[in-house]
Amino acid sequence: MSHTPMSSRQDALDAVIRRLGHSFEGEIRIGGNYVPVVHEANVAYVSGQVPRVGDSVVVTGRVGSDVALAQARHAAEICAVRALLLLRQSLGSLDNVSRILRVGVFTQCTPDFTQLSEVADAASDLLHAVFGDAGRHARTSVGVYQLPKNASVELEMTVATHAN
Amino acid sequence: MSHTPMSSRQDALDAVIRRLGHSFEGEIRIGGNYVPVVHEANVAYVSGQVPRVGDSVVVTGRVGSDVALAQARHAAEICAVRALLLLRQSLGSLDNVSRILRVGVFTQCTPDFTQLSEVADAASDLLHAVFGDAGRHARTSVGVYQLPKNASVELEMTVATHAN
Amino acid sequence: MSHTPMSSRQDALDAVIRRLGHSFEGEIRIGGNYVPVVHEANVAYVSGQVPRVGDSVVVTGRVGSDVALAQARHAAEICAVRALLLLRQSLGSLDNVSRILRVGVFTQCTPDFTQLSEVADAASDLLHAVFGDAGRHARTSVGVYQLPKNASVELEMTVATHAN
Repeated sequence: MSHTPMSSRQDALDAVIRRLGHSFEGEIRIGGNYVPVVHEANVAYVSGQVPRVGDSVVVTGRVGSDVALAQARHAAEICAVRALLLLRQSLGSLDNVSRILRVGVFTQCTPDFTQLSEVADAASDLLHAVFGDAGRHARTSVGVYQLPKNASVELEMTVATHAN
Repeated sequence: MSHTPMSSRQDALDAVIRRLGHSFEGEIRIGGNYVPVVHEANVAYVSGQVPRVGDSVVVTGRVGSDVALAQARHAAEICAVRALLLLRQSLGSLDNVSRILRVGVFTQCTPDFTQLSEVADAASDLLHAVFGDAGRHARTSVGVYQLPKNASVELEMTVATHAN
Repeated sequence: MSHTPMSSRQDALDAVIRRLGHSFEGEIRIGGNYVPVVHEANVAYVSGQVPRVGDSVVVTGRVGSDVALAQARHAAEICAVRALLLLRQSLGSLDNVSRILRVGVFTQCTPDFTQLSEVADAASDLLHAVFGDAGRHARTSVGVYQLPKNASVELEMTVATHAN
């Protein structure tokens, strides 16, 4: 297992973002009476993220027909990047994450698309690339019938933090 | 953002219940070897609630065909009220809630019903009406294939509490 | 409610395993950049478990057509046993569990299979048999469209532990 010095987390995330080829400039806004991140007693809960870039959801449709596995994995990575950007916005720095505790990955799929772990692996690999061993999390992957805005993937995350 | 004095939470919930037009009299029972609420180390986990009033699930069927968005939102509100009544029963008073941490909203929907956030917004708005800023939570909304007793919506909640 | 002395938890689990009729010998491995259990600050998060025994998922297909309720309940029990074996591996002993906090049960089902609580009850009863009152948890049960490796059931668990 590789070790990622804490000071390099932001660098690792920047490298991931360059590879994904999307701009994530600007504050991420979430409307309504809920919030992107709740941080309480050294645990931060991140709301379910869809693969949105700016104002558009960039991967939509059903995985297994409209959307191929590779695109679904790309979607899972965008969801994970969004979750990390929201955490950074809430915590000030990714260095305030002590451990990724749990990740839930929901994939909008066809009735016979069973590679749900393979979709989620893309997010898990990204978290490991950014956080090293502190990024190794518990995970639940399921295939669902539909997601907000016809998103192909949705990802939620719970993390442990240093000092409140 | 409005501020809701803690002492008015029960009043706000009572107002919501009057608006919904259902009676929630009597203890809420859940059978089997699980419990409505587990409270441990200042976190309370509320079991997934369907829109049950007394012995009946009052909103059943698939949202997007059998059930319209407005009815689904009504269902989400009933689920949220049930969760709050169970919390009150477990904690003694809603004033012992320090923060709503996370809400999960599952909607039984058609394959092309994508307004899942709009369903969940009804529950989020209700929580904000009762708790003010302490009711602003992280949230995950997904569309699922089926729910217990053919319920249209199911809602689970995790909250932080004062003193154990 | 029965009381299960803590020292007998392993015995109770062994009895369940004998009844299920599967061998769970050997370490349970999970690949990829996630882990079976994350244990932090007296809470352990168990990754979603499918009914795998050794290298095979032993209950696959859609509940309500391919798979009957009784088989789905059997699958839920296997998932729960796996979760407990993983917890034992991580914590050293089931006696280090102070409370089962939350269980999520996902069932791959037909559009009109509504007995999702009845599937989950099999796991809840098993947890009560092993842990007594400490095994009574909050629970969410939903019916989903597909699961990893075409599994019929997936179960995730969060538990409180003694001493970190």
